[in-house]
Amino acid sequence: MSEPGQMASEDAAFGLDHAFVQTVVDALAAGDVAWVAALVDPLHPADIADLLQSLPTDGRYALVDVLRADFPSEVLSELDETVLDEVADYLGVDKLAEAVSELDSDDAVEVVQELEADEQREVLNAIPPGERTFIEEGLTFPEDSAGRLMQRELVSAPEFWTVGETIDFLRRGADEDEGSLPAVFYDIFIVDPAHHPVGAVSLSRLLRSKRPVRVADIMATELNLIPVTMDQEEIAFLFRQRDLVSSPVVDADGRLVGAITVDDVVDVIDAEHEEDIMRLGGVQEDDLYSAVAETTRLRFVWLLLNLATALVASMVIGLFEATIEQMVALAVLMPIVASMGGNAGTQTMTVAVRALSTRELSPANALRVIGKELLVGGFNGVLFAVITGLVAWVWFGSPAIGIVIALAMVINMMVAGLAGTTIPLVLERVGVDPAVGSAVFLTTVTDVVGFFAFLGLAAWLLF
Amino acid sequence: MSEPGQMASEDAAFGLDHAFVQTVVDALAAGDVAWVAALVDPLHPADIADLLQSLPTDGRYALVDVLRADFPSEVLSELDETVLDEVADYLGVDKLAEAVSELDSDDAVEVVQELEADEQREVLNAIPPGERTFIEEGLTFPEDSAGRLMQRELVSAPEFWTVGETIDFLRRGADEDEGSLPAVFYDIFIVDPAHHPVGAVSLSRLLRSKRPVRVADIMATELNLIPVTMDQEEIAFLFRQRDLVSSPVVDADGRLVGAITVDDVVDVIDAEHEEDIMRLGGVQEDDLYSAVAETTRLRFVWLLLNLATALVASMVIGLFEATIEQMVALAVLMPIVASMGGNAGTQTMTVAVRALSTRELSPANALRVIGKELLVGGFNGVLFAVITGLVAWVWFGSPAIGIVIALAMVINMMVAGLAGTTIPLVLERVGVDPAVGSAVFLTTVTDVVGFFAFLGLAAWLLF
Repeated sequence: MSEPGQMASEDAAFGLDHAFVQTVVDALAAGDVAWVAALVDPLHPADIADLLQSLPTDGRYALVDVLRADFPSEVLSELDETVLDEVADYLGVDKLAEAVSELDSDDAVEVVQELEADEQREVLNAIPPGERTFIEEGLTFPEDSAGRLMQRELVSAPEFWTVGETIDFLRRGADEDEGSLPAVFYDIFIVDPAHHPVGAVSLSRLLRSKRPVRVADIMATELNLIPVTMDQEEIAFLFRQRDLVSSPVVDADGRLVGAITVDDVVDVIDAEHEEDIMRLGGVQEDDLYSAVAETTRLRFVWLLLNLATALVASMVIGLFEATIEQMVALAVLMPIVASMGGNAGTQTMTVAVRALSTRELSPANALRVIGKELLVGGFNGVLFAVITGLVAWVWFGSPAIGIVIALAMVINMMVAGLAGTTIPLVLERVGVDPAVGSAVFLTTVTDVVGFFAFLGLAAWLLF
Repeated sequence: MSEPGQMASEDAAFGLDHAFVQTVVDALAAGDVAWVAALVDPLHPADIADLLQSLPTDGRYALVDVLRADFPSEVLSELDETVLDEVADYLGVDKLAEAVSELDSDDAVEVVQELEADEQREVLNAIPPGERTFIEEGLTFPEDSAGRLMQRELVSAPEFWTVGETIDFLRRGADEDEGSLPAVFYDIFIVDPAHHPVGAVSLSRLLRSKRPVRVADIMATELNLIPVTMDQEEIAFLFRQRDLVSSPVVDADGRLVGAITVDDVVDVIDAEHEEDIMRLGGVQEDDLYSAVAETTRLRFVWLLLNLATALVASMVIGLFEATIEQMVALAVLMPIVASMGGNAGTQTMTVAVRALSTRELSPANALRVIGKELLVGGFNGVLFAVITGLVAWVWFGSPAIGIVIALAMVINMMVAGLAGTTIPLVLERVGVDPAVGSAVFLTTVTDVVGFFAFLGLAAWLLF
């Protein structure tokens, strides 16, 4: 794709640039198939996937038509779910089945699981039985489990083999039966006669050892065995924590059934990140490629929940209608206390949610963290109480209103520190993803306390 | 660390559990050094790092004392910056230098760069000159660049070597000079006489090839050369996109100077993700381990900015004091419109910020995305206009106030869709991280428009 040296300039950038995408768009619009083919031919499959995603629907169809004759199967496993559905539909069952059967078993499962049920059936039926079995087996495992993620192709060797015998086996495998070895692998798993993994030899270790050495003598025995049902979040944690590149997957009887490689785990890490960010932002799933109606529907639920909390806040204000009638300045100032509490609470909650997902926050240090956040809320509360109190005093010429807003500020920012840590901790404890629910509970608390403290103190102290 | 099979149960979990942490805490409190040592001995360095992080400061010191005699150096590169500083100080220069010099060059740079300037100097001086050179060279490269991330130890071979010669070289290297080969490697980089990379051979490819085959005949020539000054974000994109496990780093003359491996890139991906989440939540950096005073200071700036935007919103309300005086119901309802706009805008902004960071949103599709978000905002705006309008009508018995809040809702939610996409796009264009500034600009817009539309329409239509 690039000449060595060509990329060695300081401003080298990988991926597609906008000018290139525009050139493809223009060539597609002009119907210049040969030119499009020439532009796309040198691209990496992941870049073709990005290109497809950045085109509007009709452009996607046009590009699929150009690629159709020899569709690069790896593109499929790099596509976002929504775009994959579109491309899969347009490719048609036969072409799709052909492409899927060219993929490694883990990538094939990844693609097929995204298809709708009837399409899934049709595609599977169009795949030769031998290849189909691995995919069908993969689909029997729970979504997001090791079974879905693992590659069935792997290299294993018995304990009594020597380094030389293992290398000869690999060389023979390359000659005789390409299909039985994975395209790329990093570790050789050593198994006992019942096919239980007992060790692993990294290829660099194998290469540095003399031919007569027995693999059992150089294998690492501290295996990170992954049960086939393990959730991908746990797997991602393990790979990150132990700096792994590949790890063996075992069934309920402890037999070696597959291997997970780091490239798939990187995708998982990325997907988990996306989930965290989206949920914190009140989005159920990344809907960049979803149609308007679907996006509207997906976002509606969250907004409805927020409307409920906003109405609760309004009811709190409603309790003090008479107070506001006496002094409209209160209506002018009241959003400040609620807003500062919301922002301070969001800061705390962000740190807490992240620390829960990296497992840095746990019952072992929860009290310490809560105490700290309460203090931070208190200190910043006092600082902002002084600033806001002075502003309110000057603005409305009343020291009393300054004192009221100052007191309300300290209260709400301490509550924000407390709620920002305890809400995610409680949600985690009751088994709800803290990233999903924390924000809505938090703003309810900081709005209600913010309005109530400010208006309540005003009603009590000013009249 | 675990027997094979032991981990194969369905509820296997890696990492520390809370009961274990508590046992260590108790043993430390009881001063039972032998028991602590026995508990910690089987742990992976990454788990020891996690354990240190979950302890309060005096517990950290006590644990460092237990480990001091034979401090596991890899623990250092797994620690959070704040905790690393604490542990480094407490270890003392000599022990620290000893531990750092045991690390691979990339991990050593990672640790040393986090130290304060004078401590950095002292530690470097205490490291033998040979090992010190790699670290000092690493530190000359910009922070977050390939030069800081790369490992200097790598395996290269000339083009004319055969597979057999390469394997023999590796076996000799294992015998003679352990230090010259990296502990683990995945690719052999093929270089020309001027040490420019011309190809790469994965170990699995090498192992599957016969001894007389020349490496030049089996090498992949599509290299992803990483300039030594390339930013780590770009590197992370490349590894993710191309499913790489290692990639060669070249200097300005295109000569091979190091290699970056996927385990370091996983850490980068994680750090970039943390940065995104923190910035979206208004936190400058993860301050979980920072002291109260430092945390208060770090969060203050963001809150001050938010106070400014809250004051702007208050001023907008101030324009309508007379209107509110005539009808206090307006004060009760007005936060609803602003809040719904803020939430809808945050949804849009979250998708946009994420899409910018994955490069899925670009000038090529920006207009399409903006148009879509405007429509989504409009549709949800109409839905919530109806709901909120009815609620307001019933609550205050006035259809007119229902109409006012409905109109304001549609306006503000369309503005939210527009602002939620254009603000991140504009920030990205002017070179500001969209994750940092988007939220504050967005809430300013949705608050100002929300209050102004609702109160302005009320002033115009109701009186």
